[in-house]
Amino acid sequence: MEGKKFLRLLSLLLVTFILFIFIFVRNSDLPSSKNFHYVNKAAAELELQPPPRKLTRHVHVSDMARHPLDPLTVQEMNRVRSIVISHALFKAAKSYALHSVVLEEPPKPLVMRWKEGDSLPPRKASVIARVDGGTHVMIVDLGLGRVEFVDVGERSGYPTMTIEDMNTATLTPFGSKEFNRTVVARGVDLKDLACLPISTGWYGKKEEKRRLIKIQCYSLEETTNFYMRPIEGLTVIVDMDSNQVLEISDNGRDIPIPQAANTEYRFSAQKNIHHKIKPINPISIEQPKGPSFTVENGHMIKWANWEFHLKPDPRAGTYMDAGEYGFGLTAMPLDPLNDCPRNAYYMDGVFAAGDGRPYVRSNMVCVFESYAGDIGWRHSESPITGMEICEARPKVTLVVRMAASVANYYYIVDWEFQNDGLINIKVGLSGILMVKGTPYTNLDQVSDQESLYGTLLSENVIGVIHDHYITFYLDMDVDGSDNSFVKVNLQRQQTSPEESHRKSYLKATRSIAKTEKDAQIKLKLYDPSEFHAVNPSKKTRVGNPVGYKVVSAGTAASLLDLDDPPQRRGAFTNNQIWVTPYNRSEEWAGGLFVYQSHGEDTLATWSERDREIENKDIVLWYTLGFHHIPCQEDFPIMPTVSSSFSLKPVNFFERNPILGIPPNFEKDLPVCQATSSTS
Amino acid sequence: MEGKKFLRLLSLLLVTFILFIFIFVRNSDLPSSKNFHYVNKAAAELELQPPPRKLTRHVHVSDMARHPLDPLTVQEMNRVRSIVISHALFKAAKSYALHSVVLEEPPKPLVMRWKEGDSLPPRKASVIARVDGGTHVMIVDLGLGRVEFVDVGERSGYPTMTIEDMNTATLTPFGSKEFNRTVVARGVDLKDLACLPISTGWYGKKEEKRRLIKIQCYSLEETTNFYMRPIEGLTVIVDMDSNQVLEISDNGRDIPIPQAANTEYRFSAQKNIHHKIKPINPISIEQPKGPSFTVENGHMIKWANWEFHLKPDPRAGTYMDAGEYGFGLTAMPLDPLNDCPRNAYYMDGVFAAGDGRPYVRSNMVCVFESYAGDIGWRHSESPITGMEICEARPKVTLVVRMAASVANYYYIVDWEFQNDGLINIKVGLSGILMVKGTPYTNLDQVSDQESLYGTLLSENVIGVIHDHYITFYLDMDVDGSDNSFVKVNLQRQQTSPEESHRKSYLKATRSIAKTEKDAQIKLKLYDPSEFHAVNPSKKTRVGNPVGYKVVSAGTAASLLDLDDPPQRRGAFTNNQIWVTPYNRSEEWAGGLFVYQSHGEDTLATWSERDREIENKDIVLWYTLGFHHIPCQEDFPIMPTVSSSFSLKPVNFFERNPILGIPPNFEKDLPVCQATSSTS
Repeated sequence: MEGKKFLRLLSLLLVTFILFIFIFVRNSDLPSSKNFHYVNKAAAELELQPPPRKLTRHVHVSDMARHPLDPLTVQEMNRVRSIVISHALFKAAKSYALHSVVLEEPPKPLVMRWKEGDSLPPRKASVIARVDGGTHVMIVDLGLGRVEFVDVGERSGYPTMTIEDMNTATLTPFGSKEFNRTVVARGVDLKDLACLPISTGWYGKKEEKRRLIKIQCYSLEETTNFYMRPIEGLTVIVDMDSNQVLEISDNGRDIPIPQAANTEYRFSAQKNIHHKIKPINPISIEQPKGPSFTVENGHMIKWANWEFHLKPDPRAGTYMDAGEYGFGLTAMPLDPLNDCPRNAYYMDGVFAAGDGRPYVRSNMVCVFESYAGDIGWRHSESPITGMEICEARPKVTLVVRMAASVANYYYIVDWEFQNDGLINIKVGLSGILMVKGTPYTNLDQVSDQESLYGTLLSENVIGVIHDHYITFYLDMDVDGSDNSFVKVNLQRQQTSPEESHRKSYLKATRSIAKTEKDAQIKLKLYDPSEFHAVNPSKKTRVGNPVGYKVVSAGTAASLLDLDDPPQRRGAFTNNQIWVTPYNRSEEWAGGLFVYQSHGEDTLATWSERDREIENKDIVLWYTLGFHHIPCQEDFPIMPTVSSSFSLKPVNFFERNPILGIPPNFEKDLPVCQATSSTS
Repeated sequence: MEGKKFLRLLSLLLVTFILFIFIFVRNSDLPSSKNFHYVNKAAAELELQPPPRKLTRHVHVSDMARHPLDPLTVQEMNRVRSIVISHALFKAAKSYALHSVVLEEPPKPLVMRWKEGDSLPPRKASVIARVDGGTHVMIVDLGLGRVEFVDVGERSGYPTMTIEDMNTATLTPFGSKEFNRTVVARGVDLKDLACLPISTGWYGKKEEKRRLIKIQCYSLEETTNFYMRPIEGLTVIVDMDSNQVLEISDNGRDIPIPQAANTEYRFSAQKNIHHKIKPINPISIEQPKGPSFTVENGHMIKWANWEFHLKPDPRAGTYMDAGEYGFGLTAMPLDPLNDCPRNAYYMDGVFAAGDGRPYVRSNMVCVFESYAGDIGWRHSESPITGMEICEARPKVTLVVRMAASVANYYYIVDWEFQNDGLINIKVGLSGILMVKGTPYTNLDQVSDQESLYGTLLSENVIGVIHDHYITFYLDMDVDGSDNSFVKVNLQRQQTSPEESHRKSYLKATRSIAKTEKDAQIKLKLYDPSEFHAVNPSKKTRVGNPVGYKVVSAGTAASLLDLDDPPQRRGAFTNNQIWVTPYNRSEEWAGGLFVYQSHGEDTLATWSERDREIENKDIVLWYTLGFHHIPCQEDFPIMPTVSSSFSLKPVNFFERNPILGIPPNFEKDLPVCQATSSTS
């Protein structure tokens, strides 16, 4: 049964961006001042203001925290480590590893009240450690040098894997003679073997009480794109705590390893085809006077009428399928000029290794202004009125980007800020498919195409149907912390003949969600609604409550049985929108310890408590989904496919906030020439 | 009853882009050659290859047709006019007007077979004329100088209004003393009056047998944005053939005309607020070696692996709400640097006026390459595998844009071509809302908010809830003219416990639409499908049929009663996708004569014939919808809101077609400096 083998490929991806603080300053030609705060977690570290062309490698050793939300510095991490390992628990331990070392953010009111020049609230770290097979959550007070243990109760799962876990696990099978024998029997030289650590998930007793990982292997012979050369049916289960091989499945020996031909994607390996595509002349977004945004104290970004704090996080984003890898941990350095345009700023992440020592993930996030040629707004008068008016404004945006990989796949996450107050959040999928081997080399050999559960991408290669779900944690503070969630339902209003020659009108019915269950939202094309987060106590001049709305675009909903273990663990995808009261212990939609968790600590279980959410500090969760039926164009590497959703001001401003931006004038634009090397 | 007054504001917008011919040349490192043709109508006229910074005004008098699909030239239009007006019908007429003069395209096989250097097929014009109150459709053979009348049968509607119709109609009320009296009684000086021609639609007998238009008026006092100052309840019905005022409705005299304050959007009128927004440094898409596309013989665009013919059309796009204005006729000149980036090429439209004389609509369409900083594809190896690989490619696209207004609203239509074969079709809405007056100045005066049928945008101004639907005519010829429409339905496959610890898998079930009714598609989030146009007789190396799929993103579906007259006339919105067999007489989803039509000649009625569509020359129709509940940010002019859909290759290529594009290198990028005036 072909289908059996792809069961691990359903990607339940959870991105809970947290702890981004946005302060949107209203167009100041309008009387009151209004803030839009919400919270996310991403990335930062940036020193220079305009314009540096040269990328300067930032030295982090002397970094100082200057804002309550600034991430732990190198010095702070070292201090956390020394406090932790001096603790009796660690001193007495046979083995331990730190699975997470991040800033423990101060309570929100302290952050909100803090102003530049104030001293920082006490600096604390949140640490998750495994010690002799047990999991501990600790708050470390850096000032007092104290460790406080947090009782998180009984939880079924394990914390995010460390990079060391993954590295060790992929090497473990090589210690097994049986494993080596079967690899060689399949005609693969051990030196050509590449193995990946795939989280086991949880399906029942078999995955309980031990921290497991599944190793799948590939042939590297004649290609660097080993992902396209799976050794089908060979799977090793490894215990990550004891580093033992527990089980080797060796099925599918009749399935050939797909050939290396056509699998290379590196530029250096494409020599023979470069010239076949009509070349594109150099094209670049140019800002000769430098970018318009500034980065203050390393993390506070100011652009147009936006101000926000940006910092990197090792977890934000959790890959559920493979348990937990950490979205930040797997965010690779961005490639200047290709991952981000020339005018981008790059920010490093500073994370802790398994032993607690800090390391730098360079260029993890980029920030740049984008101009794609789009129009911010326009109007010209038509010949009917005879007025000579033509007004148009170019649309310039600010993009914050990271690209996280989970080995094969890439999730390119863009937060795009518009000067009209809209935020567009876009997720692009690229990278390499997780494929499976098949005996088929042509579709005409397949009697029942459905049983492929995917598409034949090349000889002996099937791209399996799968989904991606990315859940965003949006701590909405629209002009104050207490907000309400309002469903604005569009309805047909029937009319009577004496009223109109029309049979129906459109009307909007507003209902405020009182409790969490009122805000478990499934999008409906044929029963459409808008979804607003409003501040009921702040009104515009003509009396509308100020608000932001979530605007969905293309998305997808899971088709799995609600009782299917992956769906229970990923139950946060059961609705596209949820709203919960702000609660510091409800930060990760899949639960604090996702790895092998049973699904008892997810957004879905929290929301079932049906707490009150009207005029409270609320968190809005949005899930962006993709169905992916692969096609041959995805082989051997996928052109980016993207989808997005927006947060859009709705009666947040008294009127269009970008009336005042000037049009472009020729005299302001740069003078450019090709460099000598290409002219 | 407030609702009564907004009944005309439901915008049923129909854009049937036709007669764009695309030839997508496959990546030539792959063996076979494959074409993707389809058909649309838009715009062109462009002379120069790289790089001209200066916009050159093209003189059209000497234009020559050089491709079978090239639009009628100035000389050809003049010849059509002289042939037509010498015809006995016109000589004997008391009055006549030419409502449409466009190329009658040669039969498709002739176009497909034609090669550069061949002589052109006979040049013909399609002419729609009103002569003494009757409508006539004619084919004019330019070579033979002959007029042939086409019997289009009984149709209820009228052809597209001429610009002259609209201009005359807006002046007609001024001849009425009663009208002038009521305007003055409302406190409006006649010199401050601006009136707009709004099509009447059709609701029954009242709108039959006469070509009617509704005139609505506004105060221009102290603002150019008169749209925000409606004279509520004053409506004049004019007969466009006799130029008589038939009816004056004068209700709502108690509703104040909204004030002029805050309504100006022109840059020159914003002096007081410029400095309040943090300025953005100059930013520009720069190509010092010029664009990479070429325009051959005025209309054939070649870029990357795309080749397509582009031409302007006066109708493509029809505004149903107001009957017919013509999308092309109302496309205003684009503003260089603001509507399109600096590196854009501009194309003029050459259209016929009501008397048949050609005129030029300059800069109607722009073509430019865009680079927004996006990623075409990427992959880097993670630390787990230890391989040093980081490959990323910038995404550069080619955009073809026009911006059509229907007086107040702007529809910015972008066709964006990617080098991976994807076409993204984006519609942006901007411009000015059609608002209505109200006695309310604050929401606290409103007891029943639903009865506003909209949002209070400013004192005495309501933005009414409305929809926009844009229907695209896509004549799909995927690697040949005969294609099939395939629904690829994603389903949950239940499993048994002995088969897997999973309860369900995902599978894809393909079904080929045999007849039109099989292809009447309503999108379903919870029963998802992909929709492919495939060539069943062309297979890839591993046996997949070559295809393109329609990928929807955000969209909306009409909530109106199916029997509501606007919905009957706009019945093409009853589904998001339809497929019909290619038929030259089924070109406009709302029917040939939309103005005051009863809805008996729409895509919905054609499709009910349920003709065979398997492995035939098929046309795919896609409708993009928007619900618009206005908000204060839309006042006094709307920031652009956009939505899109894509045509994406699916097993059209043997593999990723953009492996061969090179990354950016610093040495290839331009050297830019600010101009002296700004440094």
